[in-house]
Amino acid sequence: MSEITGVALDAMGGDYAPAEMVKGAVDAINRSKRVKVFLVGREEAIHGELGKYTYDKDRIRVVNATEVIETAEPPVNAIRRKKDSSIVVGMKLVKSGEADAFVSAGSSGAILVGGQTLVGRIKGIERPPLAPLIPTAKGVSLLIDCGANVDARPSHLVQFARMGSIYMEHVIGVRKPKVAIVNIGAEEEKGNALVKETFPLLKELTDINFTGSIEARDIPYGEADVIVSEAFAGNVILKLYEGLGAVLVSKIKDGMMSSLRSKIGALLVKPALKETLKQFDATEYGGAPLLGLKGLVVKTHGSAKAKEISNSIIQCITFKEQQIYEKIMTCIQTESVSGE
Amino acid sequence: MSEITGVALDAMGGDYAPAEMVKGAVDAINRSKRVKVFLVGREEAIHGELGKYTYDKDRIRVVNATEVIETAEPPVNAIRRKKDSSIVVGMKLVKSGEADAFVSAGSSGAILVGGQTLVGRIKGIERPPLAPLIPTAKGVSLLIDCGANVDARPSHLVQFARMGSIYMEHVIGVRKPKVAIVNIGAEEEKGNALVKETFPLLKELTDINFTGSIEARDIPYGEADVIVSEAFAGNVILKLYEGLGAVLVSKIKDGMMSSLRSKIGALLVKPALKETLKQFDATEYGGAPLLGLKGLVVKTHGSAKAKEISNSIIQCITFKEQQIYEKIMTCIQTESVSGE
Repeated sequence: MSEITGVALDAMGGDYAPAEMVKGAVDAINRSKRVKVFLVGREEAIHGELGKYTYDKDRIRVVNATEVIETAEPPVNAIRRKKDSSIVVGMKLVKSGEADAFVSAGSSGAILVGGQTLVGRIKGIERPPLAPLIPTAKGVSLLIDCGANVDARPSHLVQFARMGSIYMEHVIGVRKPKVAIVNIGAEEEKGNALVKETFPLLKELTDINFTGSIEARDIPYGEADVIVSEAFAGNVILKLYEGLGAVLVSKIKDGMMSSLRSKIGALLVKPALKETLKQFDATEYGGAPLLGLKGLVVKTHGSAKAKEISNSIIQCITFKEQQIYEKIMTCIQTESVSGE
Repeated sequence: MSEITGVALDAMGGDYAPAEMVKGAVDAINRSKRVKVFLVGREEAIHGELGKYTYDKDRIRVVNATEVIETAEPPVNAIRRKKDSSIVVGMKLVKSGEADAFVSAGSSGAILVGGQTLVGRIKGIERPPLAPLIPTAKGVSLLIDCGANVDARPSHLVQFARMGSIYMEHVIGVRKPKVAIVNIGAEEEKGNALVKETFPLLKELTDINFTGSIEARDIPYGEADVIVSEAFAGNVILKLYEGLGAVLVSKIKDGMMSSLRSKIGALLVKPALKETLKQFDATEYGGAPLLGLKGLVVKTHGSAKAKEISNSIIQCITFKEQQIYEKIMTCIQTESVSGE
């Protein structure tokens, strides 16, 4: 593995593949000299797009994969059968060590299954969580898990908390990140059975800064840096964030267009508002890493365009350079040694 | 019971009691001739506030209750011991038939416990859900359950769906309300164990218009009228709605104040925006009914002011006049007869 971070990008996944994937890859290598990209997918289609750009040819390599896994396909079957799909070929590049990370806007299910079966879990990790960054009033928080493992057990949530803390500290650069568990009240005795069982386990941990429960109301204020949640509630949080943000913004736009007076006002506030809303735009923060694997796998939105793809690729550099994989491994093994 | 709807109002519950409670009560009887209010709490305090208004003295009665249940008190104990609290006395007015409904901005826990033990469940109802209306792009949707029963079973969710459908049809006036279950994907095979077990049961029901799964992203668009959820996820949805809405609006205001140009624009868009944001203001829609009881119990926000209290009281009129209690009872008994 060279010092440069190698990212395998699924050129065929997502609503805007391959055009926006290729554009995002070119953009990323122009932004940073510390990254190279393997564009994985149908080579003629990829070369067709690549022809539009000038770029450092040493840092983009096309890797042919003739099949595509569709979003609707049952993931386990798809990963097993489509051996020449962009997801399977891309993940194998990580497995073999040729690439450090795999980024895809394709089928979530296939990415989750492939991550576990092809890239493989770090020894000791029970379930790899999907952990996107969500925008808050103070910056960003890590929401872990947002959909990889429904019906999780307390021991899974404990691992999520520790991995999330490592990620926020070393990838995002938050010192002693505040770790909280999503709950329906602030008191320790509140919550469902899972939260009640998990809470005391988190309280015992000495390697994270556990601050207790967080109610969903306080998440957008940025009250915690790492938001630990079972995948069902986590997914609800992530999706509602997206939906409610979009509806509110569109309502506000409609409101501004409702009279001549407000239309003139809208022209004047537009530049300032654009800046504000950009802070709440999920695509600014790249994709969601699937943590706890022997290599990095990043899932972006299905609707990701070049900007999100490029940001996701750049994110992989820090992940490698900060040796997150090694840090998670050490952390999990420490747990086993202490016999918890 | 007279034809007029009698509402017992907890004059001591909530952040702004008793002033805003009394103001809300006076406002409600001025808005509708079909309602009378029992103001339950410390009579000197209530009379002190009442003295500020002129109102129809036949339709406001003060009922003395010397104790107050605090939000932090363990609910079961509080209901058992504080027999002369405004919550216990108010609920007993419903139990005895003197009042049709009880409205409180006080301790959620005490209201849930008191509703079940003092007012009592309708025979056949397993768990009474708390069901607030939430604003959407199309109007409002009923979120059922938002926090009364964590770790619910499929049979509970089936009852929530049926009660919610009755409420939306007869109180809110939506014909054949669309009922959906909160899920993390649109397909039937997606979800956690609870959703997977509940889905086929909902599909079998002939008395509701079940439309399948709804992802949290689509809730704000108003894709379903009745949103069925286990209480933990439901509470997360409700609280995130409030928190994210508030943070976005405050960010937008900050953005508008960031330059002279945008400040001038803000003045021009303000009236139009105010109207828009009002549609997304939860206090416009009154409190959340606790359904499935032998009488109506309504929980408002702890921060409720006169407007929300008044709206909550008015809401009780429709509930009584549309005989929601009787309709739920018939529906649940039909279920038992069909041997489901």
